[in-house]
Amino acid sequence: MRGTILYGERDVRFEARDDPRIVQPTDAIIKISAACVCGSDLWPYRGIQEIAEPTPMGHEYCGIVEEVGGEVQSIKPGQFVIGSFFASDNTCPHCQAGYQSSCQHKEFVGDAQAEYLRVPLADGTLVATPEAPSEDLIPSLLTTSDVLGTGWFAAVAANVKPGKTAVVVGDGAVGLLGVLSAKQMGAERIVAMSRHASRQKLARDFGATDIVPERGDEGIARIKDMTDGIGADSVLECVGTQESMMQAIGCARPGGSVGYVGMPHGVEINGEELFFPHVRLHGGPAPVRDYLPNLIDLVLNGKINPGKVFDLTLPLDQVAEGYRAMDERRAIKALLRP
Amino acid sequence: MRGTILYGERDVRFEARDDPRIVQPTDAIIKISAACVCGSDLWPYRGIQEIAEPTPMGHEYCGIVEEVGGEVQSIKPGQFVIGSFFASDNTCPHCQAGYQSSCQHKEFVGDAQAEYLRVPLADGTLVATPEAPSEDLIPSLLTTSDVLGTGWFAAVAANVKPGKTAVVVGDGAVGLLGVLSAKQMGAERIVAMSRHASRQKLARDFGATDIVPERGDEGIARIKDMTDGIGADSVLECVGTQESMMQAIGCARPGGSVGYVGMPHGVEINGEELFFPHVRLHGGPAPVRDYLPNLIDLVLNGKINPGKVFDLTLPLDQVAEGYRAMDERRAIKALLRP
Repeated sequence: MRGTILYGERDVRFEARDDPRIVQPTDAIIKISAACVCGSDLWPYRGIQEIAEPTPMGHEYCGIVEEVGGEVQSIKPGQFVIGSFFASDNTCPHCQAGYQSSCQHKEFVGDAQAEYLRVPLADGTLVATPEAPSEDLIPSLLTTSDVLGTGWFAAVAANVKPGKTAVVVGDGAVGLLGVLSAKQMGAERIVAMSRHASRQKLARDFGATDIVPERGDEGIARIKDMTDGIGADSVLECVGTQESMMQAIGCARPGGSVGYVGMPHGVEINGEELFFPHVRLHGGPAPVRDYLPNLIDLVLNGKINPGKVFDLTLPLDQVAEGYRAMDERRAIKALLRP
Repeated sequence: MRGTILYGERDVRFEARDDPRIVQPTDAIIKISAACVCGSDLWPYRGIQEIAEPTPMGHEYCGIVEEVGGEVQSIKPGQFVIGSFFASDNTCPHCQAGYQSSCQHKEFVGDAQAEYLRVPLADGTLVATPEAPSEDLIPSLLTTSDVLGTGWFAAVAANVKPGKTAVVVGDGAVGLLGVLSAKQMGAERIVAMSRHASRQKLARDFGATDIVPERGDEGIARIKDMTDGIGADSVLECVGTQESMMQAIGCARPGGSVGYVGMPHGVEINGEELFFPHVRLHGGPAPVRDYLPNLIDLVLNGKINPGKVFDLTLPLDQVAEGYRAMDERRAIKALLRP
């Protein structure tokens, strides 16, 4: 088969690789129906996060089950399935507490920008749709694998509640789907902090009631103004830089919550700067598996259309162009179809 | 009158000062019945936190109202009252949300180790007992002013729930009363991390079910062992150093909560070290005013006896010995009586 390998800074290649095969009896092999490029893929692509050797890429996936190991019980060949970037047994205490991305047996699934994929712990990790979905639903279903699930966790961690104010820091795909998530959870006012016209428009489509283009202290001042000096109940931090984290903390009211899902790069939080604002902080790698059944239902029932976040569709073998387009911010998110 | 002034490192003096007087029509003047030395007073006493000039000390107090300003309505001369270290109007949006220590009009009350004290925003800040309490209740009532309210907030922020496991980092007076608070909130297992026999004993008296003397990675490993490798549901961080914060984060389970109330000194939290453990973090200066009515009731009804945390009682004019005894860890907490 063919798959994506990152060789070094801005050097992505799509090339022949060994077919994945069943290694553990709990594995499944799936034929990829769609994959995509994640904002977090850009960290190593840009050389900011070092890689030790040529590295397979891709951790968002959906597809048709080709084969399962001898101990797999609920997942069957022929099913259309979606899984998370962390395989999980879905039975350990952390999974039962809703933190499958901290599963005691978690394994990272990191080579999904390919024609075929091995998924460990298939019964715990994969969720099958009742029947094969129509083509037009595949982009939205793919988002549940990570980008929507991550935006959803940001909103959960930020304690978004009906009638409250949510601020979203970051207008990448996760931030935009954080807006959609906050809307689904009933937030009355949803402020997207974005300075890009195309992303502002999508944010409004997904439910943003206000747009704030300012950043940093200026952005914080705008949020304070908009909330009668109080600050926001919930802030979704969807970037992962020092600036975005401090912006998020600054926008929250005392007792308000910051849900952070942007993988932190160089973030250091000063104890006093966290102590005095009385902010609640929660985040980490999203426990996507916990949300998959609900998010898949919302897509299949036409309640949400998160697939709109893909503004570029490419054949899988043009994956390198997907990275380039996102790196240059020509695309919000690139969908890859084999 | 006479009051306490910190002149510099380990130089505390009790000396003549101007009598406090009504400055704002919302002020009250109280005659101090009891005050005490706080662990946080030791930071400037030890020279770790610099002071720019000779500084009045003390922020825990209860006493009899002597005089009130023209706009004070609910507080009357002759009442026995307790207040928090932050005066608050108790009406602004932050107060209404239960964060009186972030009140939009908050003022620090910092000169309570004295014979008389001016309390701003008296109606919002002070809570009166139904009648003058008996002498034996005064130590316990005094704790509600800060040290108990702060331990209580640590437990609230750490999301302590009935039947769950709570770990308390720090065996100072706040940590010990964090144990008491966790017990009141129904925690089934309460682990006090302490290596001092007298403090271990008091922790057990207040409800600790287990004692762990190890610190750092060893302490974390012990907590993991005790919880079948899962970690604690709730961790109360009652110190404020880098080591204690990282110990607290390390003891929590994924999705577990760290409530931190130790005023941070030199604490820097690395983004990734917070991201991957999935810990919830909340803390800050305790909104004591929110808890005062309940805590006062618990004391008056004999449900709790937090005054046991005072293991040294001194006449107010020997305040310097109170600082020395706590600095040298000869005393857990020093009670001062005029």
